[in-house]
Amino acid sequence: MALTGELFIGRERRETPRKFPAFDPASGRSLEPAFSAAGSAEVEAACALAHAAFDAYRELPPQRRALFLEAIAKHILAQGEPLLQRAHSETALPLPRLEGERARTANQLRLFAAELRSGEWLGLRVDPAMPQRQPAPRADLRQRKIALGPVAVFGASNFPLAFSVAGGDSAAALAAGCPIVVKGHPAHPGTSEWVAQAITAAAAETGMPEGVFSLLNGPGTELGATLTADPRIRAVAFTGSRAAGLALMGVAARRPEPIPVFAEMSSVNPVILMPGVLGSSAERLAREFAASLTQSVGQMCTNPGIILALHSPGLQTFLDAARTALANITPGVMLTAGIHRNYTQGVEHMLAHGAELIARGEAGDAENCGRAALFSVPAATFLEDRELSEETFGPASLVVRCATVAEIRRIIERLEGQLTLALHMDEADQPLAHGLLPALERKAGRIIVNGWPTGVEVCHAMVHGGPFPATSDGRSTSVGTLAIERFLRPVCYQDFPEALLPLELRAAELLRWPHRLDGERRLAKPG
Amino acid sequence: MALTGELFIGRERRETPRKFPAFDPASGRSLEPAFSAAGSAEVEAACALAHAAFDAYRELPPQRRALFLEAIAKHILAQGEPLLQRAHSETALPLPRLEGERARTANQLRLFAAELRSGEWLGLRVDPAMPQRQPAPRADLRQRKIALGPVAVFGASNFPLAFSVAGGDSAAALAAGCPIVVKGHPAHPGTSEWVAQAITAAAAETGMPEGVFSLLNGPGTELGATLTADPRIRAVAFTGSRAAGLALMGVAARRPEPIPVFAEMSSVNPVILMPGVLGSSAERLAREFAASLTQSVGQMCTNPGIILALHSPGLQTFLDAARTALANITPGVMLTAGIHRNYTQGVEHMLAHGAELIARGEAGDAENCGRAALFSVPAATFLEDRELSEETFGPASLVVRCATVAEIRRIIERLEGQLTLALHMDEADQPLAHGLLPALERKAGRIIVNGWPTGVEVCHAMVHGGPFPATSDGRSTSVGTLAIERFLRPVCYQDFPEALLPLELRAAELLRWPHRLDGERRLAKPG
Repeated sequence: MALTGELFIGRERRETPRKFPAFDPASGRSLEPAFSAAGSAEVEAACALAHAAFDAYRELPPQRRALFLEAIAKHILAQGEPLLQRAHSETALPLPRLEGERARTANQLRLFAAELRSGEWLGLRVDPAMPQRQPAPRADLRQRKIALGPVAVFGASNFPLAFSVAGGDSAAALAAGCPIVVKGHPAHPGTSEWVAQAITAAAAETGMPEGVFSLLNGPGTELGATLTADPRIRAVAFTGSRAAGLALMGVAARRPEPIPVFAEMSSVNPVILMPGVLGSSAERLAREFAASLTQSVGQMCTNPGIILALHSPGLQTFLDAARTALANITPGVMLTAGIHRNYTQGVEHMLAHGAELIARGEAGDAENCGRAALFSVPAATFLEDRELSEETFGPASLVVRCATVAEIRRIIERLEGQLTLALHMDEADQPLAHGLLPALERKAGRIIVNGWPTGVEVCHAMVHGGPFPATSDGRSTSVGTLAIERFLRPVCYQDFPEALLPLELRAAELLRWPHRLDGERRLAKPG
Repeated sequence: MALTGELFIGRERRETPRKFPAFDPASGRSLEPAFSAAGSAEVEAACALAHAAFDAYRELPPQRRALFLEAIAKHILAQGEPLLQRAHSETALPLPRLEGERARTANQLRLFAAELRSGEWLGLRVDPAMPQRQPAPRADLRQRKIALGPVAVFGASNFPLAFSVAGGDSAAALAAGCPIVVKGHPAHPGTSEWVAQAITAAAAETGMPEGVFSLLNGPGTELGATLTADPRIRAVAFTGSRAAGLALMGVAARRPEPIPVFAEMSSVNPVILMPGVLGSSAERLAREFAASLTQSVGQMCTNPGIILALHSPGLQTFLDAARTALANITPGVMLTAGIHRNYTQGVEHMLAHGAELIARGEAGDAENCGRAALFSVPAATFLEDRELSEETFGPASLVVRCATVAEIRRIIERLEGQLTLALHMDEADQPLAHGLLPALERKAGRIIVNGWPTGVEVCHAMVHGGPFPATSDGRSTSVGTLAIERFLRPVCYQDFPEALLPLELRAAELLRWPHRLDGERRLAKPG
């Protein structure tokens, strides 16, 4: 398949006069072809199609949408090496990482297909009529969840497959029954075009209505704002910077009809090294930390950006071993020249704010290499300077040296919301860990024991979310099957004749799905 | 019990120098005693206590919080006639209505107690470790839902018991594990004090931590804004006007850390009279409509404010019968002089916008009587003038005369979000109803067949919510057990040692609760 640089407006491919280039960040050179930038006419056309497709798409039997998701996975995998090569050229992410990411993307689509078939997301509840009840009869009341409407999905720079055109947000929204209009990330438009081809092929193969998917590309922030403001868009899913997420939240809140924005924005993922384990295993922890910090050149939402530990010989051993480990890690090329520039400035910012430089990684010889940086400050300095707790996107981390457990506790209480908090501990640390747990729960969506935050399992129990500013809505997750709930709302049907009821709420069909009958949980009948 | 007019700051009763009166709307006279108005010092004190209580309260076994809710119900019922008398004096709502509302309030608390014991709200999910999995092992991942934090609950004027101090929002938030700071409605501060006494007694009796409940009173809008802005408040629950709801949404969005606002604001609850049933049963429908419209002097969130029907002899019969029925209904006194003034202006507004007056109720001889008003306009006029579709709080309704089914359809598509949409239909109307259903689902939280929107059952399948502006977040309900989900967020525990896990996620305890194991639904083991 040759890339054309065109947009996808439903089944139509469209070229526009305004073009923008893709770049290879390792060389700084632009890549062929030039890509069409979408304007308000393309937003209008894509949203009109998405709106027109909505009622038909959301009422398809769950099995039909499941087949669509599985077909997307199949078509992405069938694209083979050229997709990975293009993603590599546009992002400088290594091929093995991209291969893993592609597998995750396919598995994610299949997991949502399985979730669709489980019917859990339908949230069926039936409270049958009680015509004889005193003092007043009860009506027949039945509840199911339906899709919100067309969703604007924003591709993320750092996961060109797993959180981009057919990534987690797209899979969850499509599963819920929401047509999607994707705003592709301008740093990997060729990869986006490949994946859009796969979705379009899958939609045709499985007979989906036109408008269930569109892809709009463009540089700058105006396209995203225009899309978010469109009255036919009913929710936004976004992964990216705090500034960009806040801007979209503002646009959505100022609409005549405000809509929910699910933005995954900013997290420094503090890791607490407890005294017991630090005393016995500082070198191992330092090696693991260096690997986690520099994974994908630190360009992970769950990068360990802050380490909290007590002053101790163990901490000194940790810092020394981390210095050695980081010095031996070959730096990778960052996703874009802009991200590299911001990272470099972020490192300078830390120094300007009085953080002590403990270690640096190799400089690297390609363009835009992300050179690891490890800093340290005493807790008192950290507590005084809010900016030291802000995210530096890239392989930088800050060790906060605490004099007392009370200081660790005070820092946790002062933290903003986080995607993750991790505890390294041994048996002896357990009482201390127990005491910190309530505060950790208030601050994060996921709490990890003896592990590192990077690596997010796509499963049922995962939470990739957390209080603001980790996300705009801490009641949600953007990874795992619970992510589908972002795009659903409950509807109650009162005294409906059987023939008018949605299929899954009719007496016979209801038994095939998990439901609550007068509040009591019932399993789906097999078969 | 004598009323003191004091505030409730945790266990402390506090008087402030600034006082405001309660009024009897039927006479316009003020009622004893004068009530203390809360200022920023009281907001500070109540929020500090709520924050301090949060960790302990949310980690109580569900059974403990269930006993607390049941004790609140018991203490409210034990207050007997004086509570009802005070509520009657302050709201002019008839005693039988208040008696019914008290029963609903008690049942609501008990329903949430039962929901707590069911464990459904915990949302337990376990994906066990897979240490042998290739290419990488899977960690042990466990999810539960925890409370958001202290919630600001705003009492509503029109339900002094069921949507006020111990109403639906309070019951849902307390069940979820959230301490509440209630901003009492200034129109019924004496009723609020009675109920606050019941909650305080129940909290003491069942050993709840101090700070789980506070009651702040005050006139004006500043108190609510100050409370919503307090950083310790993590969510807001509100029922009231669109203007007040939008103002709170604005305050919440402008916080350094934005929080969710669940505001139930504005709905005209359109009722569609289908041609078949209108031809055969116009007189019955008119009588039922008149009763629904004037229930509680039309001061219901679910008041039928718009009727859609085709031009026909049946419609003329309906209008004539409604005129007769309304003329025979004795008007009630409205909740406050201000609500009466707004209602009177709303009726004039309809006339000024060209609506034809079809019928008026009796004028009544008490102060502040809400005189029913029925208007009619052709669909074309309605479609041209957005203001005709806005809510007039009180017993006013507008019949929109449609020339064609297409016109009905166009009006539905142009409607804002609604709490309810109702269809009156017979067998012959079914195909038409079927065609309208997708649009109805997009516009409302509850769809009713052959019933009237007033009367909201408190049960599992109820949805009292709907797209904006019916509510600020159409993914929620403020009535029924699903309302608890507004105040919960998921947390994931990764590789936790058994002893550190929350109780309900430990191996043995897990079996006692409904959960999903690797996605598969498991029922709670009895015993």
